[in-house]
Amino acid sequence: MDFLVRIDTSRVHDLPADDHADLVRRERHRGRELMAEGVLRRLWRLPGKRANIGLWSADDADALEEALDSLPIRPYADIEVTALATHPLTAEGPLPR
Amino acid sequence: MDFLVRIDTSRVHDLPADDHADLVRRERHRGRELMAEGVLRRLWRLPGKRANIGLWSADDADALEEALDSLPIRPYADIEVTALATHPLTAEGPLPR
Amino acid sequence: MDFLVRIDTSRVHDLPADDHADLVRRERHRGRELMAEGVLRRLWRLPGKRANIGLWSADDADALEEALDSLPIRPYADIEVTALATHPLTAEGPLPR
Amino acid sequence: MDFLVRIDTSRVHDLPADDHADLVRRERHRGRELMAEGVLRRLWRLPGKRANIGLWSADDADALEEALDSLPIRPYADIEVTALATHPLTAEGPLPR
Amino acid sequence: MDFLVRIDTSRVHDLPADDHADLVRRERHRGRELMAEGVLRRLWRLPGKRANIGLWSADDADALEEALDSLPIRPYADIEVTALATHPLTAEGPLPR
Amino acid sequence: MDFLVRIDTSRVHDLPADDHADLVRRERHRGRELMAEGVLRRLWRLPGKRANIGLWSADDADALEEALDSLPIRPYADIEVTALATHPLTAEGPLPR
Amino acid sequence: MDFLVRIDTSRVHDLPADDHADLVRRERHRGRELMAEGVLRRLWRLPGKRANIGLWSADDADALEEALDSLPIRPYADIEVTALATHPLTAEGPLPR
Amino acid sequence: MDFLVRIDTSRVHDLPADDHADLVRRERHRGRELMAEGVLRRLWRLPGKRANIGLWSADDADALEEALDSLPIRPYADIEVTALATHPLTAEGPLPR
Amino acid sequence: MDFLVRIDTSRVHDLPADDHADLVRRERHRGRELMAEGVLRRLWRLPGKRANIGLWSADDADALEEALDSLPIRPYADIEVTALATHPLTAEGPLPR
Amino acid sequence: MDFLVRIDTSRVHDLPADDHADLVRRERHRGRELMAEGVLRRLWRLPGKRANIGLWSADDADALEEALDSLPIRPYADIEVTALATHPLTAEGPLPR
Repeated sequence: MDFLVRIDTSRVHDLPADDHADLVRRERHRGRELMAEGVLRRLWRLPGKRANIGLWSADDADALEEALDSLPIRPYADIEVTALATHPLTAEGPLPR
Repeated sequence: MDFLVRIDTSRVHDLPADDHADLVRRERHRGRELMAEGVLRRLWRLPGKRANIGLWSADDADALEEALDSLPIRPYADIEVTALATHPLTAEGPLPR
Repeated sequence: MDFLVRIDTSRVHDLPADDHADLVRRERHRGRELMAEGVLRRLWRLPGKRANIGLWSADDADALEEALDSLPIRPYADIEVTALATHPLTAEGPLPR
Repeated sequence: MDFLVRIDTSRVHDLPADDHADLVRRERHRGRELMAEGVLRRLWRLPGKRANIGLWSADDADALEEALDSLPIRPYADIEVTALATHPLTAEGPLPR
Repeated sequence: MDFLVRIDTSRVHDLPADDHADLVRRERHRGRELMAEGVLRRLWRLPGKRANIGLWSADDADALEEALDSLPIRPYADIEVTALATHPLTAEGPLPR
Repeated sequence: MDFLVRIDTSRVHDLPADDHADLVRRERHRGRELMAEGVLRRLWRLPGKRANIGLWSADDADALEEALDSLPIRPYADIEVTALATHPLTAEGPLPR
Repeated sequence: MDFLVRIDTSRVHDLPADDHADLVRRERHRGRELMAEGVLRRLWRLPGKRANIGLWSADDADALEEALDSLPIRPYADIEVTALATHPLTAEGPLPR
Repeated sequence: MDFLVRIDTSRVHDLPADDHADLVRRERHRGRELMAEGVLRRLWRLPGKRANIGLWSADDADALEEALDSLPIRPYADIEVTALATHPLTAEGPLPR
Repeated sequence: MDFLVRIDTSRVHDLPADDHADLVRRERHRGRELMAEGVLRRLWRLPGKRANIGLWSADDADALEEALDSLPIRPYADIEVTALATHPLTAEGPLPR
Repeated sequence: MDFLVRIDTSRVHDLPADDHADLVRRERHRGRELMAEGVLRRLWRLPGKRANIGLWSADDADALEEALDSLPIRPYADIEVTALATHPLTAEGPLPR
């Protein structure tokens, strides 16, 4: 199942500089792992915002929760989850990337 | 440049049945063309909503406008456009699909 | 997967009386079927509102969409879908009903 | 009478780690008691949110207040209460669980 | 149980003059009955608004729904219901009127 | 003149325990005085909220301000005031209590 | 008592031209009368909006309602009323005009 | 004085085709005149929206109202006006274009 | 040019008592000056709110900014500015005060 | 590509006086550089607000992000970015400045 996930990371920027740098480093590492697992499929920054928006895939909401809970920034993040359903247009065959 | 585009098609459902069916047919055809051109990259339905959300790619806002204006449902659609910037995580190499 | 689904039926009330009565009859019949299939688990009215809120279960968003599309009032309804994840408290065993 | 109760627990996460762990332990204990009493009937997590949503049953708003006031997290929680009325569909007999 | 009920009657004003007058007459009559039954306890107009706000008493949400459904303007009204709980201050004895 | 006054007392709960207890005691005392004076006519708690909603009577907005300013919690409170006008239904005679 | 009153007249513009012109003429006439009575004290247009905002004075909300009900555009208007209290700064003497 | 003016033209699209075309032609003509007068300084389309946003210059709000009232689409437009003040950065000399 | 200016002073109340008293004293003094200059024309308190709303006159937005920046509470205030245009009704002659 | 960028600088005002002065100095310096580069084209203050709104030009969202990230106030700023598309009116030739 696909989910659109918006993660606001504003509060991360209130951390002391060292903690902030360390957290970003650990977060990037975990992000790479989730990409390799095919859970995090696409990721963008929202211009001007301290937030990202990504395409996540998981069996269901529980599996998504587990993945989100594994993010080091989880305690500082405000997250909006939008469940996505297949569009008839794409049901007739995968979209070119 | 990537854009997240939400298209609300509620007002299409107020059309007489024949017009509605014809419009959907022409819209699907145009959608196919945009997919083939790599402008429309991903497309989902929003559960419960008469709306879709898609990943669109265009050189800039003008090019995106041109693509959106080419949609048969354009006169009936309410469209939200969110510009997307590259996330550092993906700048280090394309995400697995 | 569980979903909380709020269905606003205000526009149904703009229909001519006969059409309204027939639609409500067909809708109740379909609701009964969905209950029997275990898709529609709980259903309440929202005091003062022309809307209901219900607990729906489906494999994923696509399956939920299919069930919602099968509702006779679908063309007149405004629907809000909230995906639900298992709470640790209930993971330790089903809640008494 | 049924109530849909959304409890936002974000501020609990600002507590020192030990206090947070102790509070969660006491909260789970109280939650189990309320489930056994049939006051807390169903409970879910909202994906991405530090919040839960549950089906509560109480004689009236006063009884619900009493139950909510008994929650250890009460001082840190932002709570939305929605009163629910019986839907005609279910008035004709209990829904299968 | 007490409820604060806000009833927006804007759409009543779109009716032809005769229908509007008749509806208001029947609504006032029904309002009188509900007052006599002690269901409708207090009623005010909201300055500038085509809306009223009232203090209603009913055993529970179902009973309130029944009373609201009995209002002739029900099909035209947008209604907000707020459940009220007893305040400790008044629990120590009824307020002077 | 009648006013509907919603008082959010969330910030009172951030006070040290002793200060909080003393403030609530003084607030209850002042509330009793205002009830005796017929300024505070009805008062309820909003289920789940750290807020109350009450029916206040005062000659005009200045008199209401004076009464609200006399509340010990005033510095911590967020207050919403709604002016109320007499409804034709009640103009024909006082409502039964 | 002073009130700030915002009157949205958008729907007046949906009337046939003759009706619109006649309504505006009658409305201006009534406005003149209210000014002469000292009820309508100041009046401005909101740039870009089909709305005005004015300073109204009336004994209480009932008197204000009566004045607003006397406006020919009343059936077409959406009105926001804000009650105003005397500011200490002006309590020490009237403001220069 | 500079103003940022957002003009939503959605309702123009509900006009019959001929009227719509004629209105757009007259609107473009008037826009040209306002540009030549230096009243309309910059103009953009908002991607996906049936709306434009422009930089307008006028002596004051009255002068701006007069210019906006001169637009053929005025009866169909929803307009948001934001007054702009000089920024210290630009007060030190005009910005390069 | 007239402006409606709403000034929220909530954060002033978080200051230590002495600072608060001094700030209010200085603010009242500056307010008297602005009244004498005819910049601050009318001022009211918003019942229940720690905010005031006033009628300000200035040549343009820059002049208004200058006046607002001169307020001692400026660093603590949240300010909403609404530009006002002359209403045709008053263009035919000044309103009685 | 043009962007309308609104930058809220409220949190800058919570800094100690010296830090605030230094930050504003560095920010003005960087602003001058961006103007010289033609990235920051126009800039205004929003009356009453601790915020500015500006016309920015960049190849795409990534280039805009880079420019915004170079602002000294970036960690304290809340930024709203609106992508702008060319309006047909201006496509027929540049607007007079």
